[in-house]
Amino acid sequence: MRYELYYWDGIPGRGEFVRLALEEAGAAYMDVARLPQGRGGGVSALMHFMRDAAVKRPPFAPPYLKAGNLIVGQTANILLFLGPRLRLVPKDEARRLWAHQLQLTIADLVDEAHDVHHPIGTSLYYEEQKREARRAAKHFTSERIPKFLDYFERVLERNRGGRGHMVGNAISYVDLSMFQLIAGLCYAFPRNMARRARRYPRLIALCAMVAQRPNIAAYLQSERRLEFNEDGIFRHYPELDV
Amino acid sequence: MRYELYYWDGIPGRGEFVRLALEEAGAAYMDVARLPQGRGGGVSALMHFMRDAAVKRPPFAPPYLKAGNLIVGQTANILLFLGPRLRLVPKDEARRLWAHQLQLTIADLVDEAHDVHHPIGTSLYYEEQKREARRAAKHFTSERIPKFLDYFERVLERNRGGRGHMVGNAISYVDLSMFQLIAGLCYAFPRNMARRARRYPRLIALCAMVAQRPNIAAYLQSERRLEFNEDGIFRHYPELDV
Repeated sequence: MRYELYYWDGIPGRGEFVRLALEEAGAAYMDVARLPQGRGGGVSALMHFMRDAAVKRPPFAPPYLKAGNLIVGQTANILLFLGPRLRLVPKDEARRLWAHQLQLTIADLVDEAHDVHHPIGTSLYYEEQKREARRAAKHFTSERIPKFLDYFERVLERNRGGRGHMVGNAISYVDLSMFQLIAGLCYAFPRNMARRARRYPRLIALCAMVAQRPNIAAYLQSERRLEFNEDGIFRHYPELDV
Repeated sequence: MRYELYYWDGIPGRGEFVRLALEEAGAAYMDVARLPQGRGGGVSALMHFMRDAAVKRPPFAPPYLKAGNLIVGQTANILLFLGPRLRLVPKDEARRLWAHQLQLTIADLVDEAHDVHHPIGTSLYYEEQKREARRAAKHFTSERIPKFLDYFERVLERNRGGRGHMVGNAISYVDLSMFQLIAGLCYAFPRNMARRARRYPRLIALCAMVAQRPNIAAYLQSERRLEFNEDGIFRHYPELDV
């Protein structure tokens, strides 16, 4: 199976959670919107399945994945679909549900990390809601980040025999997404994250473990990996990292 | 199987999406936190699985469902689990993924509907972020509600032969959740929703269809159904409905 990933070019965003799973598994995939328009890529390719009236089950927003005739949207749903196919989730239903539950909790924090710099509306520029963002950032960094990270650290702690993994005792898409979440938070809020790092030895060990996996290490060095930047979900505005 | 639902008493909130599925299917369930403390209910019962160090896979937040020894958290994940068991989702994987994708898109709008009255932080009162909420509401009602509802209406339109259902041609948990989402939006933003109703004939027909299903009709009349109120996700503040 050759997968087609559809996501905005220029930002890691939510597409990155899918990309990391495909890369870890060494799956064959095309990052469609990053191909030149002349080779069927670009924004028009991205928009096609969302806008063409002939598409029976249109996705609401990127990322979405095309696998044969199937189009799967919503980041966590894509990973739910890919997990068993890429062997990135345990086989039993209980742990698959648990992995998905953790993925949805990661997605919640990702949403909140976005809303910090866009508390009023996504259609406005950051500069138009800077004042509100400052107020929101205070709560996000002092209450929400600790609440979620305390929880994830606890999940690692309670997974005895899990050898540092979030689910089961082997790599799963949840580990990969956790790596990306922590990387994003460290990019956006370096001072806050540095100050809190000592509280999260297990999460930090998990990030190191993921970064050292051969396929991931090679991917992170490649030009397929996109840098965080101020068009994405995790943005570094020093005034929000207080 | 006797299910145990754990969710805050006093608000419909995210628990209601699960409750509607259990009620439609006529499933045996206990709404644990609504039982008196003396009968094992109340907030302490709700907190137990989130706080007790002996719980191997603690949920981050309510709602969560207990089914035998299994504890499933995250609203959409609970419905993913219950769907096949309650026969509220088609059998094939493609349509199960599609149903879940729609459920996650509903969840996104539910999150945004909450954030309108809490744009700065969940730990603050509405009164402490009223000014920001007013600004956020303008964008939510003029941009986000139409964007999502246009999409859902389009999904109904493209489901030819679906007899008014979101997925397949029979009732699914997605129909039930869509009913609750529209009901919540109509409660919170009556003026906006009334003004836009003509754009969404299929969504309105779906709501009527759900409300008339015998089990749902009986449930809506019962005291098990909780009213919307200003402690919940969908809140009616007239100043936000402009």
